[in-house]
Amino acid sequence: MTNAPTRRSELKRLPERGTHDRPTIDAILDDGMLCHLGFISDGGPVVIPTLYARRGDEVLIHGSSASRMLRGLASGLEVCLTVSHIDGIVLARSAFHHSINYRSVVLFGIAEELVDLDERAEALDYITDSLVPGRIAQLRPTTEQEVRGTKVLVLPITEASAKVRSGPPGDDPEDEDPALWAGVIPVSRTAGTPQPDAITDVLTSVPDHVVEWTAR
Amino acid sequence: MTNAPTRRSELKRLPERGTHDRPTIDAILDDGMLCHLGFISDGGPVVIPTLYARRGDEVLIHGSSASRMLRGLASGLEVCLTVSHIDGIVLARSAFHHSINYRSVVLFGIAEELVDLDERAEALDYITDSLVPGRIAQLRPTTEQEVRGTKVLVLPITEASAKVRSGPPGDDPEDEDPALWAGVIPVSRTAGTPQPDAITDVLTSVPDHVVEWTAR
Repeated sequence: MTNAPTRRSELKRLPERGTHDRPTIDAILDDGMLCHLGFISDGGPVVIPTLYARRGDEVLIHGSSASRMLRGLASGLEVCLTVSHIDGIVLARSAFHHSINYRSVVLFGIAEELVDLDERAEALDYITDSLVPGRIAQLRPTTEQEVRGTKVLVLPITEASAKVRSGPPGDDPEDEDPALWAGVIPVSRTAGTPQPDAITDVLTSVPDHVVEWTAR
Repeated sequence: MTNAPTRRSELKRLPERGTHDRPTIDAILDDGMLCHLGFISDGGPVVIPTLYARRGDEVLIHGSSASRMLRGLASGLEVCLTVSHIDGIVLARSAFHHSINYRSVVLFGIAEELVDLDERAEALDYITDSLVPGRIAQLRPTTEQEVRGTKVLVLPITEASAKVRSGPPGDDPEDEDPALWAGVIPVSRTAGTPQPDAITDVLTSVPDHVVEWTAR
């Protein structure tokens, strides 16, 4: 599937930080779970955080069939789906050159609803297994009623761009004082100790797929 | 400053997770550094990740004066500014009840440009010191040229809502099998060891404000 820059996805600011390279885009999408989905409602912009999963050349999102957002989107509204990761705080020798190290993807398109119930059930399992790989195999099958209560939208990855900033600060030469500490504070997302709920028996061990999640 | 729900900021889905309470909204804003800013460009939605800082009853954002986004916004376009934190992965006993624990704020309004140079310089210092408290005191003053090269936009916190999900999964009673592990994997953002750049002298110690950032 092509991902050629359009007027909309063309990289404007600091194009040296940007790319339309699909492996880069896919890696950034695969490293996240929450996207920020923008659409127009009542003439104004709305940005909602929502779970997503990449499946090949498309991004899946889901939500309650009663959701105003998903009802609007399902009728063919344009969306902009953005995913961002913070990798570090960049401390320069001037306020002006302070920044963050980040990776982001901006994806434009029209989200299409998955109407077929079997396709929808399959997509929902895929989303859950993207969030927690190996989880679906442990669970009872999703019921038809649950599938009917959930909308799934598909957005093709055809109009996307990525931006990445990494590395040390870019100070102006006249500011390069070795006695002034400058550099990067790395930042990452980490998992804590899994907390079983009150129903889980104390003798039930933490399953491998949960341990693997916390170790990644 | 009031923050009464409007038609737009009214909580629609799962209103029990939502609030218009300002201390809750402020705490969520203060816990983040990157927002997702939505606006309309060429008739379509655009969502861009950008740094922000809350200052009292307003949110400050900034960017290059050459930025297409900031030029558009400065002319009085409507925006939706969204901030989200992931606190945990919620593993239920059905795929249907899987979720994440999160805190998010959605803020609607019209961003106004700070035209006055002194006010802009002050706001830029404020943004840097919000990103890294104590940093500004270590740096040379921002030059007039740097201030002129940067736009600052102010968005009042008058039409905002917060949503929070916390706690264990909410399984259906018929699924409550104690032998099936369910619960929460806590997730948080953590800082690594600060990395000085190549210019920083090896004898320059890591300053307190950097150590404090990594310890929070």
